Amino acid sequence: MLSTISISSRQRTELIDITSEVQKAVNNSQILDGICVIYTPHTTAGITINENADPDVRRDIIAGLLHLNFEKVDFSHMEGNSPAHVKSSLIGCSETIIVENGKLLLGTWQGIYFCEFDGPRQRKVLVKILKG
Amino acid sequence: MLSTISISSRQRTELIDITSEVQKAVNNSQILDGICVIYTPHTTAGITINENADPDVRRDIIAGLLHLNFEKVDFSHMEGNSPAHVKSSLIGCSETIIVENGKLLLGTWQGIYFCEFDGPRQRKVLVKILKG
Amino acid sequence: MLSTISISSRQRTELIDITSEVQKAVNNSQILDGICVIYTPHTTAGITINENADPDVRRDIIAGLLHLNFEKVDFSHMEGNSPAHVKSSLIGCSETIIVENGKLLLGTWQGIYFCEFDGPRQRKVLVKILKG
Repeated sequence: MLSTISISSRQRTELIDITSEVQKAVNNSQILDGICVIYTPHTTAGITINENADPDVRRDIIAGLLHLNFEKVDFSHMEGNSPAHVKSSLIGCSETIIVENGKLLLGTWQGIYFCEFDGPRQRKVLVKILKG
Repeated sequence: MLSTISISSRQRTELIDITSEVQKAVNNSQILDGICVIYTPHTTAGITINENADPDVRRDIIAGLLHLNFEKVDFSHMEGNSPAHVKSSLIGCSETIIVENGKLLLGTWQGIYFCEFDGPRQRKVLVKILKG
Repeated sequence: MLSTISISSRQRTELIDITSEVQKAVNNSQILDGICVIYTPHTTAGITINENADPDVRRDIIAGLLHLNFEKVDFSHMEGNSPAHVKSSLIGCSETIIVENGKLLLGTWQGIYFCEFDGPRQRKVLVKILKG
């Protein structure tokens, strides 16, 4: 069962909570036990799992990556978005979550985030649920 | 088949070898071929795979992350553990390993580590094995 | 279905495109829908997904990691390749990609790369396809 989530990012760098859309994809699959793979087919974006309670944590992840100062590196790629490509490889473009009794087995404080590193853009996230 | 590994971390930052517990979960599942998903439901921790021979490598991964100096960033989140949240997103909260003939297909020098970034705490790791 | 890709890296640090070899493994599996797990059993290497069009992006990912300056950290491990171990944990040793109609669901600009951080060496990558 494959689902697609469409995302319109509005800022250059942004973490967008997609937890409820991913849970909806799990519901639609009618798979009760297995795993859920969340995958973004873009090279200047990523998927991460982190705190869903205090929105400051989202800002702090962006601040932490900004602190690494990739913006000052003398990169070769001419489009000017090399820092976004590097962040994409560090964060990764997918996450895998266990599903039990039809629910994503996220921790109490975990949410799933689409990470925009080169927005604003139209983006998508693929969600595949495997029974097992 | 879903298993839970309980962990009591003893330091603020620590890599704890969970390879044998994960292999035990594979044994208990009686699944011979497939994949094993190792997932920690915490937002200031992670799962990584790295060298299991020289314990210095574990210390060096911690030293490498410390070198990135997230501790000096002026973060927004008030709990003071933002560096741990950033490290969690960089390392990631899960790993997926291939299983063949009932064994995790780890390399000769690979071990599986729970990464504590905000300890000491009581933690858990979920292990799901899928047949295939 | 498990396949092995053999790689001879030629430089100390290098990103090697393995997309077509992984797609061949998917073809050989005759699995049309499911997921594909790409795993490298080495502790000074990694697997990442990033741009396949401009080869400069590959160089920029290497430059981005070099910019983090792990080479200047006073590490404990005596082999002198601790920066490679740290990069391996940051990039990760596996990726999971969705398969539909027998094709890897990569984005238009995505390729799969084996990341050599301590070459030149003989390396391998395992590819497992799960139906579902």
